This record gives sequence, C-alpha cells and structure tokens, in this order.
Amino acid sequence: MTAISTINDVFSLIDSELKEIESAYADYLKTNVSLIPKISEHIILSGGKRLRPALLILTMKMMGDQPYSGTAMAAVIEFIHTATLLHDDVVDQADMRRGLTAANMIWGNEASVLVGDFLFSTSFDLAVDQGNLKILKALASATKRLAEGEILELMKTADITTTEDDYLAVIEGKTAILMAIACEIGSLLADADHEKQSIMKTFGLNLGMAFQMVDDVLDYTSREEDLGKAIGIDLEEGKLTLPLIYTLKQASDEERKQLQEIILADFVNPEDFTYVYQLLTKYKGIQFTMNQARKHIETAKSLLTPLEPSLFKEALVFVADYVLDRNR
Amino acid sequence: MTAISTINDVFSLIDSELKEIESAYADYLKTNVSLIPKISEHIILSGGKRLRPALLILTMKMMGDQPYSGTAMAAVIEFIHTATLLHDDVVDQADMRRGLTAANMIWGNEASVLVGDFLFSTSFDLAVDQGNLKILKALASATKRLAEGEILELMKTADITTTEDDYLAVIEGKTAILMAIACEIGSLLADADHEKQSIMKTFGLNLGMAFQMVDDVLDYTSREEDLGKAIGIDLEEGKLTLPLIYTLKQASDEERKQLQEIILADFVNPEDFTYVYQLLTKYKGIQFTMNQARKHIETAKSLLTPLEPSLFKEALVFVADYVLDRNR
Repeated sequence: MTAISTINDVFSLIDSELKEIESAYADYLKTNVSLIPKISEHIILSGGKRLRPALLILTMKMMGDQPYSGTAMAAVIEFIHTATLLHDDVVDQADMRRGLTAANMIWGNEASVLVGDFLFSTSFDLAVDQGNLKILKALASATKRLAEGEILELMKTADITTTEDDYLAVIEGKTAILMAIACEIGSLLADADHEKQSIMKTFGLNLGMAFQMVDDVLDYTSREEDLGKAIGIDLEEGKLTLPLIYTLKQASDEERKQLQEIILADFVNPEDFTYVYQLLTKYKGIQFTMNQARKHIETAKSLLTPLEPSLFKEALVFVADYVLDRNR
Repeated sequence: MTAISTINDVFSLIDSELKEIESAYADYLKTNVSLIPKISEHIILSGGKRLRPALLILTMKMMGDQPYSGTAMAAVIEFIHTATLLHDDVVDQADMRRGLTAANMIWGNEASVLVGDFLFSTSFDLAVDQGNLKILKALASATKRLAEGEILELMKTADITTTEDDYLAVIEGKTAILMAIACEIGSLLADADHEKQSIMKTFGLNLGMAFQMVDDVLDYTSREEDLGKAIGIDLEEGKLTLPLIYTLKQASDEERKQLQEIILADFVNPEDFTYVYQLLTKYKGIQFTMNQARKHIETAKSLLTPLEPSLFKEALVFVADYVLDRNR
C-alpha cells in the first residue's frame, strides 16, 4: 500500500490485526452461562465501527515494528465500550442500537445490567492477565472517569442551565477518555517513551471530543437509515448537547421558554422537532458545534507533526478527518 | 481480651482496623460529581454487617503480626459488594435494603446502575494502586464469577426445573466467591504460603455458601423488623432457593402444580405464602437447607484446625458459628 485515501485503506492496513481481534472476542467471552454470549455477541458482533481497537493498533504499529500483540487490550477496550452501551441503553430506555433492537428491549433491563457487569469484569480479568501495571492503571483511571461522565450526564438531564463546560466534562468522560486510553495503551504496548505516550493520549482525547460533538450533531441532522438509530433521540431524552446549549444561550426569552417545554416533555412531536431545528439553524448551533469539533481535530493532527512519517501515521490523520466528515 | 464469646468480641478484636476502613470510605469515593457520594454513602454508610472487611482483616492478622494494611483491599471488597447490591436492586426492583428505602426507589434505576459502575471502577482503580498482580488476579477472577452467578440466577428465575446443583452454582458465584477472596486476599496481604492461602480461600467459600443458605431460609422464617427488608421476597421474585427446590422435588404432582402457579404469579398473597410455608414444613425444606449450611460450616471450621491457635482464629470460628445462628 502506498497511501491512505479512503477509510477502507485504513482498515486494510491493519486487516490481519483486526481479524485476529474479531476472532478472539468469542474466545475471551467463554463462559458456562448461556445467556452471556447471546447478549454480548448480539451487541458486539452486530458491528460498530471498531474505532477504538483500530486506534490502539494503529498507534502501536506507528511506534515501530513491535513483537507485541494488541489483541487482548483492543478487546478489553471494545468490551468496556460495549458494557457502557448496554448500561446506557438501560439508562436511556433505548429501542435501537447499531440498527438492531437494543438488547434491553429483547432480554430486559436486568440482563443488560448484568451482562454489562460481566463484560466489565472480563475486561478487568483480561487486562490483569497482560501483567502490566502501567496499562492497568491507565485503564482503571479511565473507567472511573467514564463512570463519572455518565453520572454527570444523568444529573444534567433536562437541565436547561447546563453550560458548555458541563457538556465538555460529560463528553470527555463518556467518550473521549476511552479513545484517549486506546491510543495511550497502544503506545504503552510499544514501549514508547513518556512524551510519545502523552502525545498519543492527547491525540485520542481530542479525537474523542470531536467524535462526540459530531455524534451530537448527527442526532439532529442525519437520516435514520444512515445512523442505525432514531434521530432526535437526545432531545426526546432531555439530553442537552452543544448545538442546543449554544442555541439556548442566544435565544430570546420567549424562545427559551418554548425550548424548555419541549426539553421537559416526554415526547417530542415532529412540529416540536422542526421548531427546535429552526432555532438551531437561526442561531448556528450546528455550525458552532462543528467548528468546535474541527478545532479538536486540528489539535489532534498537529500533535502528530513531530512523529516520524509512516503509513500508520497517515492512517491516524485520515481517521481524524474522517471523524469530522462521517455521516453516521 | 482473653476469649471470644460474642460477635461484639469479634468486632472489638479488630476495632481499630474496622474504624480505619470506615473512615477511609469517604476518602476513596471522592469525586466532583455530587450524586455519587449521595447514593454510595446512602447504601454504604447505612450499615450492613461489614462481614467481608472483617473476614479480610481477621485472616490477615491471624497469619501473624503484619506491617501491612488491609484498609484499601477491605474497602475494595465492600465496594464491589455494594455495587452488586445496587445492581441487584435494579434487577429485583427492590423497595427496601438494610431497613432503608432502596437507592433505585429514591434516585431511579439509572443512577443505581451508573453509581454501581462507579463503585466497580473505583474498586479496580484502588486495587491497581496496591500494585500486587496476584491480588489483582484473585479479584478479577472473582468479580467475573460474581457476574456469572448473577446472570445464572436471572436465567433460573421462575424456572421450577432448577436443580440443587443450579442453586449451588448460583450462590457460589453471587455470594461465596466474594467471601472466599476476602479471606484469600487477607492471606495474600500477609504473605502467607500457598497452602494457607488455599485453606483460607476454601474457608471463605464454605462460609459464604452457608451464609447464603441461611439468608434464603431467613427469607421464609424471619420477621421483617429483624431482616430490614420484606420477607417472602424470593418467592415473589420467582427466585427458587434451596428450601423450595428441595420441597418441589418431594411434593405431589398436585402440590407441585400449585407451587408452580404461585412461583409464576407477580404477587404472592398471604394465603399463598402460608400454603408454601406449610409445604416447606411438611417436606422439611428449611431443615434440609439448614443441615446443608451446617455441613459447610463444619467444613470451614475443620479447615482451620491445622492453623496455630490465636484469638483471630477463635474469632473466625466464632463468625462461622454465628453465620448459622443469626436471625438477620
């Protein structure tokens, strides 16, 4: 391969590693309890972008040709991500996930909670087996901040006084941290020096911030077929994301009052959604959010500048741009 | 102190260690997210028997006068226990816990799920900080088996074909394993040799099996004021515990049919409960379960025989007997 020009080139570049990770999932999830593979495979094998494993492997390979395997730790990160999806869907009472009926709708909240716990503890167990305390510490701090982010988001539900800073704290915890440690662990596996570890962690963090901002924009602008889940969900759940927070700050008192009513309502009918969308357009809430996302992507890419050129580096730059341009 | 003759003597013996653990909880749970201490302190500081921390400290001290501290690992075990209580209450839709309104009834299922996750990840983080891979491996395997036990229990809900072996697998996972590693970690902290570690792990396992059997008996025989939660809950939730499993095996076809109807019903009215209780008495389901519990306690105590005499050993023997005799 000579250059990266599509997202498929990125995945092709680490195809053998990604295939190894995919085929390891079932092995790592071995258990005598039959409900566990049913639920975890429903959600894990139903796809997902595998962005986190890819970030880990790309970072590890960029740091030089290593004899190390990133398979176990990539699976750990994907399992933690999956566990939070299972628990999120209970919290959000979601109907759809990755274009399929959400697990909690099929097997009940109880099973989603407990299989999520199984995935968390399996991740922990698998990570301990790697025997690297630095990696374990990175993982433990990250999962703690992840839980804090999720709780902060819950506390801010339907709270129209939510500030941009609150929002940034929420998305850092619930999304960016896990991408940050995917990159950090990739560099730790490659025995990179402290400076490079720190660069890659910050790269992942900025990528993750942008990723969630784009996600929150897509919830307003995408089409259901593309997203694999309903749009307008954040509004219905009373989740105040940046497009809306920015709009609320500039809206007139009358508009803010109407927005508040819509945010507090259990259902959002199409006219309400259209009304909100018009205000987002009027006050450029989408545009502002995309600009913030773009800034994070620029920061992420500039962090890579001092690193030696390689196809892996090129791929990471491509992923950064892709996060901005994707439509799902 | 010259001898252990009450459960208070047991707690007095390790009073300073237990006080240190109690005062460390708040410290370990420090976070900027205000909902977390509210919920976790509601459930942690509302009491509980502190049996797991006591097992860890007693085991550690029995192994010789150590310079080690068991505070962090005792808190880890209690946090994991608390996290499973929070998630259990969501699964069981419980109203009461430790004589107080269950957390999910006050703050909602969402908060219980996420604060449980925070406690899990905090435990992991705190355990990693101790820097001992053997302890981490014990903890990781245990939490994985704990999750498996919980899921197996969920799968067996309202299943009248549940066997005694199914029941044993469930209670081993959901209860006994955590007591086993409380003792195992106590001996690991004291640098005990492999044989002693194994003795103490098996001691804790047997103690835990008996503990859960007695719990399941108390759910039929206790009074609400003593238990701090409603009785007959297991039946209402369709949980088949040993007293009922043993009774079902011996019941006539007609009786089994009626039992099945009661187990499958959403509500258990007082006459149904009385009917079930009469069958448990007729077929000696309670007596059988208590006998099984007694066997586990005898095994546990005999395991300690080769160990040097000490007040700590005496205290562990007392705890074993206490598990059988308690009324809550």
